[in-house]
Amino acid sequence: MSTDIDPRVRDAGAKATILAEALPYIREFSGKTVVIKYGGSAMEDPDLAHLFSQDVVLMRLVGMNPVVVHGGGPQISDLMRRLMALVGKVNREIVASVNQHGSYAVGLSGEDAGLITVAQRDDKLGFVGDIRRIDPSILERLLREELIPVVATVGVDEAGQAYNVNADTVAGAIAESLRAEKLVYLTNVAGMYSDLADEASLISRIDVDRLAALVDDGVLSEGMIPKARSCVDAVKSGVSRAHILDGRIPHALLLEFFTREGIGTMVIA
Amino acid sequence: MSTDIDPRVRDAGAKATILAEALPYIREFSGKTVVIKYGGSAMEDPDLAHLFSQDVVLMRLVGMNPVVVHGGGPQISDLMRRLMALVGKVNREIVASVNQHGSYAVGLSGEDAGLITVAQRDDKLGFVGDIRRIDPSILERLLREELIPVVATVGVDEAGQAYNVNADTVAGAIAESLRAEKLVYLTNVAGMYSDLADEASLISRIDVDRLAALVDDGVLSEGMIPKARSCVDAVKSGVSRAHILDGRIPHALLLEFFTREGIGTMVIA
Amino acid sequence: MSTDIDPRVRDAGAKATILAEALPYIREFSGKTVVIKYGGSAMEDPDLAHLFSQDVVLMRLVGMNPVVVHGGGPQISDLMRRLMALVGKVNREIVASVNQHGSYAVGLSGEDAGLITVAQRDDKLGFVGDIRRIDPSILERLLREELIPVVATVGVDEAGQAYNVNADTVAGAIAESLRAEKLVYLTNVAGMYSDLADEASLISRIDVDRLAALVDDGVLSEGMIPKARSCVDAVKSGVSRAHILDGRIPHALLLEFFTREGIGTMVIA
Amino acid sequence: MSTDIDPRVRDAGAKATILAEALPYIREFSGKTVVIKYGGSAMEDPDLAHLFSQDVVLMRLVGMNPVVVHGGGPQISDLMRRLMALVGKVNREIVASVNQHGSYAVGLSGEDAGLITVAQRDDKLGFVGDIRRIDPSILERLLREELIPVVATVGVDEAGQAYNVNADTVAGAIAESLRAEKLVYLTNVAGMYSDLADEASLISRIDVDRLAALVDDGVLSEGMIPKARSCVDAVKSGVSRAHILDGRIPHALLLEFFTREGIGTMVIA
Amino acid sequence: MSTDIDPRVRDAGAKATILAEALPYIREFSGKTVVIKYGGSAMEDPDLAHLFSQDVVLMRLVGMNPVVVHGGGPQISDLMRRLMALVGKVNREIVASVNQHGSYAVGLSGEDAGLITVAQRDDKLGFVGDIRRIDPSILERLLREELIPVVATVGVDEAGQAYNVNADTVAGAIAESLRAEKLVYLTNVAGMYSDLADEASLISRIDVDRLAALVDDGVLSEGMIPKARSCVDAVKSGVSRAHILDGRIPHALLLEFFTREGIGTMVIA
Amino acid sequence: MSTDIDPRVRDAGAKATILAEALPYIREFSGKTVVIKYGGSAMEDPDLAHLFSQDVVLMRLVGMNPVVVHGGGPQISDLMRRLMALVGKVNREIVASVNQHGSYAVGLSGEDAGLITVAQRDDKLGFVGDIRRIDPSILERLLREELIPVVATVGVDEAGQAYNVNADTVAGAIAESLRAEKLVYLTNVAGMYSDLADEASLISRIDVDRLAALVDDGVLSEGMIPKARSCVDAVKSGVSRAHILDGRIPHALLLEFFTREGIGTMVIA
Repeated sequence: MSTDIDPRVRDAGAKATILAEALPYIREFSGKTVVIKYGGSAMEDPDLAHLFSQDVVLMRLVGMNPVVVHGGGPQISDLMRRLMALVGKVNREIVASVNQHGSYAVGLSGEDAGLITVAQRDDKLGFVGDIRRIDPSILERLLREELIPVVATVGVDEAGQAYNVNADTVAGAIAESLRAEKLVYLTNVAGMYSDLADEASLISRIDVDRLAALVDDGVLSEGMIPKARSCVDAVKSGVSRAHILDGRIPHALLLEFFTREGIGTMVIA
Repeated sequence: MSTDIDPRVRDAGAKATILAEALPYIREFSGKTVVIKYGGSAMEDPDLAHLFSQDVVLMRLVGMNPVVVHGGGPQISDLMRRLMALVGKVNREIVASVNQHGSYAVGLSGEDAGLITVAQRDDKLGFVGDIRRIDPSILERLLREELIPVVATVGVDEAGQAYNVNADTVAGAIAESLRAEKLVYLTNVAGMYSDLADEASLISRIDVDRLAALVDDGVLSEGMIPKARSCVDAVKSGVSRAHILDGRIPHALLLEFFTREGIGTMVIA
Repeated sequence: MSTDIDPRVRDAGAKATILAEALPYIREFSGKTVVIKYGGSAMEDPDLAHLFSQDVVLMRLVGMNPVVVHGGGPQISDLMRRLMALVGKVNREIVASVNQHGSYAVGLSGEDAGLITVAQRDDKLGFVGDIRRIDPSILERLLREELIPVVATVGVDEAGQAYNVNADTVAGAIAESLRAEKLVYLTNVAGMYSDLADEASLISRIDVDRLAALVDDGVLSEGMIPKARSCVDAVKSGVSRAHILDGRIPHALLLEFFTREGIGTMVIA
Repeated sequence: MSTDIDPRVRDAGAKATILAEALPYIREFSGKTVVIKYGGSAMEDPDLAHLFSQDVVLMRLVGMNPVVVHGGGPQISDLMRRLMALVGKVNREIVASVNQHGSYAVGLSGEDAGLITVAQRDDKLGFVGDIRRIDPSILERLLREELIPVVATVGVDEAGQAYNVNADTVAGAIAESLRAEKLVYLTNVAGMYSDLADEASLISRIDVDRLAALVDDGVLSEGMIPKARSCVDAVKSGVSRAHILDGRIPHALLLEFFTREGIGTMVIA
Repeated sequence: MSTDIDPRVRDAGAKATILAEALPYIREFSGKTVVIKYGGSAMEDPDLAHLFSQDVVLMRLVGMNPVVVHGGGPQISDLMRRLMALVGKVNREIVASVNQHGSYAVGLSGEDAGLITVAQRDDKLGFVGDIRRIDPSILERLLREELIPVVATVGVDEAGQAYNVNADTVAGAIAESLRAEKLVYLTNVAGMYSDLADEASLISRIDVDRLAALVDDGVLSEGMIPKARSCVDAVKSGVSRAHILDGRIPHALLLEFFTREGIGTMVIA
Repeated sequence: MSTDIDPRVRDAGAKATILAEALPYIREFSGKTVVIKYGGSAMEDPDLAHLFSQDVVLMRLVGMNPVVVHGGGPQISDLMRRLMALVGKVNREIVASVNQHGSYAVGLSGEDAGLITVAQRDDKLGFVGDIRRIDPSILERLLREELIPVVATVGVDEAGQAYNVNADTVAGAIAESLRAEKLVYLTNVAGMYSDLADEASLISRIDVDRLAALVDDGVLSEGMIPKARSCVDAVKSGVSRAHILDGRIPHALLLEFFTREGIGTMVIA
């Protein structure tokens, strides 16, 4: 009898090799908490949103503790209706999408078990709040139960009034409070540029002091500022690494975590 | 020196006596799960809503496991916007109100960790769903952590699409799945009447077979039907008692649970 | 149909309001340990003793950890027979009384699991001992099991010989060793007086340094001295508050813990 | 250099051999619960009482779960004073004696956490009770904490009134409720005799049916009857073996459990 | 600025897609125990052995509980030296190889904590034993600690004498005792053939009754018999599926568990 | 009826007394970890080996945590075959011998779960390694499960290659990493001598500084050097006591631990 390999397994073999290549990364990140700020095309494009759901469930199944933080959602001029949509529609849709792959996701907003306490920024701005306190215990409990928290960035003040909070800032504050391994921003750009006019100036890796300098020098795009500041704060407070990833790339999270090819910009201590 | 009792404690003494009278009830219900369908004036009147929050936190603190289920909310003609408001506004407000007394409440809807799976009732009715399956594990986890789940009655189908579900029916199904001690409906009436035309026909206590007969005979008001059916199903499935309480009475829950004076209608096996 | 409130619930409403008023106190003391020195009329008057039992069980049921310490008992001239009665009669009766409300109380004396080690004070005084060491581990174990320890203040020396110990002092030492939240003395007076001749000099609130000064100045009654000293020691060692309560008032414990009206004297840091 | 054995260890060698011989017995009884009815000379003779304390602590240290049950004590005609002495003196002394070897023993009587509930036997007999219910949970908790419960055989009725209960019967009932491996009676005789007039009729081993027949035939001494009945009941209810040991023999318990030479009478299924 | 995808991530994207395809399989097998009989080329070829180690660690990291069972090793005529090599060399090398990827593997043989008890088959055969009893508790403990047991198939008799045992049979017996999800044989053939002379007769899927018939009909190769018998026994005892895989294929385990393409022969109930 | 003691229990009484004498020692060592370097006659003489197995099981049963470390074994010139025999034969035989008394022992070598990591000492010496790192977590897990680890002193380097390591040194390093109470060497001599030519110079007790001086002064026998060094290191690192015992004495371990007569040399801080 011949001992030739069955030809139907040849292609599969290539697949198995790729799975095996993920081994050292899976080992490295097992048990680590990763806070993911979700938004942009990755959230708005239904196909990318579906891949994102796969990615966070896969991260959960290989032993990581992903926490999803999102804001954004539809452009509604009335702020109160915007808040309502954030929790009532956007958060629900993300939870439902992740749970297509198993009963993992639980939606939260800042009211839940005292997660995000805010104070109003300014009377004139209406229901816009700044973070006063993060109580991560509800997140820790859900992670311990191997669930995936999905956080809508609504905060409440001491009187129970709801406010909109900047989602990039919340993601950073939650990463700090959980002493997360990583803080990841999914964006609509390839990463940070040291010179916005020059595509070749894309930064692969930057330390936290140089990034703080870039923020001060005003060379970053406006949308990048809160992300950059949060990266600086988080890494200075003990988060090992922060990442700006291009959410338009399918499976951007898997690429970053489980393959040799890093993408986007990584901020280190 | 006289040994006369300080006069400032006389009135307080009456209060202490009332607290002490609650002892046997607190002992009886310690560790028991109670599912409360919240709605009507108790939810819409801000003063009653505030008292309701006090009541469920007090129940939690004396060792009971309250689960709040609510639907309702503002009368919005567009069903999708209605769903959005249910989770994004009503649920959030209940959670924030309860958490004025401590970080106990966590908002949930049917998407969370597979809690409520539904199927569409009828194409023509749009996003109206019927319960297919309740997975109470997220509720059990939160109760074990001594938190108070607040459930908005939105369900999802297998494809992740959200549907409106009858909140009375959800409350009953959740009580069954948790093998709760009690199922409580807070309503805008004094209880069930055996003759709608006769106030004197208010029923204090009824067994489940007689209640099933009343449903079949069509003598109950229309709004009472889903509650009555759920009471019958729940008590037949092992819930010890079901109650129709008048939510317009301040502290209706405390009255029912911690004083000698029962109120409303009690359904027994 | 009228929506009038059922008249039979009006009075009950007042009761519910009083229960609800206890909410912030219950929340504040949940999980806290309180050591209660039991004695005087509260122990000797059968009606007050019955109310005391209700109070400590209620404290247990709302999540507090009460520890009862008692000495006293019948005036028997023979010290050995007195010790025997203390454990064999007084302790047993307190345990049985508390357990009329559920199987919560477990009687202990200093011999049990090394709880109270003493040394003889003076040959001439016979079996009178002074505390050498408190080992609170048996108390911690019973509290963890949600039981109520009832401690008779008999100590043993290294050779296993039993001695009478001052119960006020034992209560203070146990509160210290458990890092209790509160130490409470139930007495036959309205509280401490800064001038024994003047009823109007009843002290509501005093800090620990001023109380130490009162002890040194000899203005306190003789019976109050060991209590006052123990209050000073306990509060200096980390017990948050110590209280001298009038045990002749029915439900003195509930009044102090669960109503706005404080009674007796409170010692603070 | 010579390799001769150091002469000072020769005698010690014999000791080590005896320790090693205990190995199979220690292994067999590890984790097993043994209820010991303590009384007679073993309790009244101070030297034997000291050895008894050593024995039960040794049993605990090698992994067994001993439970000591005792009644008896001084001959006091007044039944109430007798109850008082039982708990206040006898129980305390046993606890203190055991705790000379470490903080293992905790004294209990029937009031504690609902351990022994009784009903009055007969108005004319005064405070003599018969067992209605044993709740062994406090014993199980203390054994789980590796403590040694020492039970004074006082029971309480539903109203909290204390009664004397036959200690032999309590020991058997506790052994049943704990599904103990062994029930042991320490007595003042060498064992059971099939003919009281004939010392040679000492029974080494008897099955439960033959023992029941001896009880019915009236050939046992009067003091042996409650022990024999309890042995029969216990073994029929799943206790593996019951033993009547001669408590006048020093270290009777160690002899029975840890050496090849059985003593007294063993009752088997 | 262009929004073109960075070209360096294109290839990586294909990899990410393959990882994502593994998601449903990882979810399905999470928490499941799989017993793998290791041997043949997969063990003897150093490159394949390295890939095997990667595979079992990857299985562990994605939440499966792999148990490796091996025999075989070098062809040594002297049975005692063969046993010695089995544990002292082969087992050690497998453990060391797996632990190149983290401290997961623990080597065991049948002596350890009573894992495999055997009886001698026949005096004339020397140290060849047949399984009498499997005590899987040491395996369960190690799996609970998220370790990977590697079992050398040496058994001991009641006197502590070591024997060689058929490794295929041990693998099946261990899978039964652990109520494993799967039993996998890594072999040097493509699977089972219904006609040894006809390569086209390779069986993809067979139910347990048909496989039992093939064994009885004598159509299987001699080396396949113990594997086939163990597959039959294991699946009849509750193991969900048994697999005969071609261990000469790189990453045969990953292919079978994490890709759509099944390989080898699967035995079902 | 006579109350004479049954004559058959007289001898047994002496035995019971000896058991009782062990009580204070058992109490003292309960829960303590003891690392035993096993070797010499105690391992090679089958009778002594049998007694050793009894001793370590007895230690386990009375609540101690023994860890056995062994090297040695048959004199095989080929180092690789020697390593193979160490794990494949010597370790297996010790495990099987201990498990004659119950399923307690689990064999380990340095590969298991990263226990012993080494580096090659010198190319010319072949597979001789020096300790780089001890990871005691697998030992702690097995002790927590009340098992007896038996460690063969084979280490692996980072590449998974096996090396021989000095067993005396491994025993000391393991004792340090476990913060053991005691480190014990079973040897073929009566203890350490301050003058090798003078039997009377046997040292009973020595402090660690004096022992370090003896090592430096070169007065110890060559075989004693690694043991003496390890004793010094271990005691300086927090191990309470180290012992050099004469393994030729039957039950040397029991003698040392459970009788008043100490044997051999004790090293103290």
